[in-house]
Amino acid sequence: MVITFLSDFGLQDDFVGTCHGVMKRLAPEVEIIDITHGIPPQHVLQGALVLSNTLPYMPEGVHLAVVDPGVGGFRRPLVLRTADGRLLVGPDNGLLMPAADRCGGVTEAHELTNPEYALDTVSRTFHGRDLFSPAAAHLALGVSPRELGPPLDSQALVRLDVPEPEVGQNRIRAVVLYVDHFGNVQLNLKREHLEQAAVLPGVTVELEIALDRYYAVAARTFADARPGDIILYEDAYGNVAIAISGGSAAALFGVGAGQEVRIHLRTP
Amino acid sequence: MVITFLSDFGLQDDFVGTCHGVMKRLAPEVEIIDITHGIPPQHVLQGALVLSNTLPYMPEGVHLAVVDPGVGGFRRPLVLRTADGRLLVGPDNGLLMPAADRCGGVTEAHELTNPEYALDTVSRTFHGRDLFSPAAAHLALGVSPRELGPPLDSQALVRLDVPEPEVGQNRIRAVVLYVDHFGNVQLNLKREHLEQAAVLPGVTVELEIALDRYYAVAARTFADARPGDIILYEDAYGNVAIAISGGSAAALFGVGAGQEVRIHLRTP
Amino acid sequence: MVITFLSDFGLQDDFVGTCHGVMKRLAPEVEIIDITHGIPPQHVLQGALVLSNTLPYMPEGVHLAVVDPGVGGFRRPLVLRTADGRLLVGPDNGLLMPAADRCGGVTEAHELTNPEYALDTVSRTFHGRDLFSPAAAHLALGVSPRELGPPLDSQALVRLDVPEPEVGQNRIRAVVLYVDHFGNVQLNLKREHLEQAAVLPGVTVELEIALDRYYAVAARTFADARPGDIILYEDAYGNVAIAISGGSAAALFGVGAGQEVRIHLRTP
Repeated sequence: MVITFLSDFGLQDDFVGTCHGVMKRLAPEVEIIDITHGIPPQHVLQGALVLSNTLPYMPEGVHLAVVDPGVGGFRRPLVLRTADGRLLVGPDNGLLMPAADRCGGVTEAHELTNPEYALDTVSRTFHGRDLFSPAAAHLALGVSPRELGPPLDSQALVRLDVPEPEVGQNRIRAVVLYVDHFGNVQLNLKREHLEQAAVLPGVTVELEIALDRYYAVAARTFADARPGDIILYEDAYGNVAIAISGGSAAALFGVGAGQEVRIHLRTP
Repeated sequence: MVITFLSDFGLQDDFVGTCHGVMKRLAPEVEIIDITHGIPPQHVLQGALVLSNTLPYMPEGVHLAVVDPGVGGFRRPLVLRTADGRLLVGPDNGLLMPAADRCGGVTEAHELTNPEYALDTVSRTFHGRDLFSPAAAHLALGVSPRELGPPLDSQALVRLDVPEPEVGQNRIRAVVLYVDHFGNVQLNLKREHLEQAAVLPGVTVELEIALDRYYAVAARTFADARPGDIILYEDAYGNVAIAISGGSAAALFGVGAGQEVRIHLRTP
Repeated sequence: MVITFLSDFGLQDDFVGTCHGVMKRLAPEVEIIDITHGIPPQHVLQGALVLSNTLPYMPEGVHLAVVDPGVGGFRRPLVLRTADGRLLVGPDNGLLMPAADRCGGVTEAHELTNPEYALDTVSRTFHGRDLFSPAAAHLALGVSPRELGPPLDSQALVRLDVPEPEVGQNRIRAVVLYVDHFGNVQLNLKREHLEQAAVLPGVTVELEIALDRYYAVAARTFADARPGDIILYEDAYGNVAIAISGGSAAALFGVGAGQEVRIHLRTP
């Protein structure tokens, strides 16, 4: 059985390793795949988007996700079953919902309240270790979600606002969702939005970021551009992103998640 | 069989991956759990504390730890057996001792001198790869510690000085042990020390760090505080730590391991 | 069966985890060893050198490497078989060749063109996920390289220029190949080059880096030097490196890969 694991724990500390230890003590045969632990601390939306983007590439199993600024407070700990048979474990703060939607929606939801499936002592600040990891391990061993706690109404689960772009004639107002290790800047846009604004491959656009303006070319891939060119392209997860061929767009723009980007079609 | 692995190697280079390769060549069936490789370079004390904090959460097995500023010199390479049956492998510089104490103490110690259980060539600077990883793999395969080298007197093993706090009436002088990825600042204090100085949940204290002063509230968890509040709380490993609800205390204070923190109870 | 995996993907994003997911979906029994994902973005030469240095320590199997600035362009995706029976998978940009040479040379090369062994949709920017990971998984399951695509002439594969040092009487002109996590600075030199220039253990040399000069001692290991001493030593992979006992040489020199270092023997 496979458990996938995504968090904002980083790899500097022992948090991820300790959760692995907890799961392996309970379920020695389980295989753990670390999706990433590099979600920026407490950025629930980014965690939710990455989980949703990557789950289709993961073996079906138990999918543990912890980005949990509300730990120790009133947010509920959850297990969800999706229509395609996956089990998602994490806090009820919206983190799991885009992934659950992508997997056909929630067919069953339970709050994790049964102390039999948690560690003996549950700290107030590290539910990843004390509550979520043991739950994931027991689920991987075949324990039914309903053993872990009472059912919840799936309509009552917390959902995040995913920012929507404004698409006009020849112009788009978008928001940066994510900046990756290569400095590529992912926007809240799909190719359809570009097409709607007549931004087609080969076209030059003007980008307005903070108070600066840049020219960029709509392209299919890095290889279509000369080194140093700024390109607008559909990335490997189907989002529109901005990149610099052979460089870091994020470093050039000084841009991070949440920032606004305006795209204007240059009229010839 | 499980080998856990902790080091200061970081994940930028191949050091951790190469040690995995060495262990897997010798013991293909072994399962390796990486506790962390983010110990600050050559900080033996931090490595020792993290190993001691995390070992109780790990499956019993062989526990490899390498933070080894004395590599290539006179420090001895070790395997220890603890009263609860774990085998600890690493340098004789104090790194293993707090964890061994926590596991009931050392019942058997051997120096790693038998070349049969090392790689054919042992470099002068990478004993993690050439000496400790092969030893851990052979132990995981069932080789007895006494095969690896002569016994050592466990009283003669190197021990670290763990800094002790000064606890007075209404004031405490503590030291930063560790700063984590979320910017939480762990002190060399237990809840008992706070209670001894009458710092109870709900009480406001003054923190003196370098030349700056801050107000903080003794709290049970982040959820008890408003965003931006500085809180003093018992962390998930039983140490007192300082955090900012929704922020990074370490970034605010500009603080790192070894720095002094004074806590004064505000008299009403 | 083992797949080793090296890339410049970093661990901040999901790229590595997603490739693991893809491989595990296709080959659930495969064991993946991450050599490193910390190759500086798009530095093919550094990736090639690290792969070549580490492969001898890895179990034999399939060896996946992705540092791929030309993704989406005309560079060919490859599988190579080496004389010692390893299978290397990655782009035809020179990344695999030093490792292949070290494993006895290429005995068979195929271009990855058969869509049956790729994901259903192959993006233009993430061949690690869509093309190379599935190929590695199928090879680990026993599919023959020739099933994956047409044979290539191994003489026609792309090769990198590895910079050569200039060794004179009492002086050497070298280049920084790599800076590691500890701040050790690896040069494009072997011990033979030092001996050729009469730089023997115990000798003091002058280092010229950018416009600065430093004294260093040729040493066998860190333990031969006093804290703060700059030493020139043969590192664990057989390259000459510069280190500071108890410190970071890279931080002192402000140096990175590609920079020139001149070594002068001080005449007494």
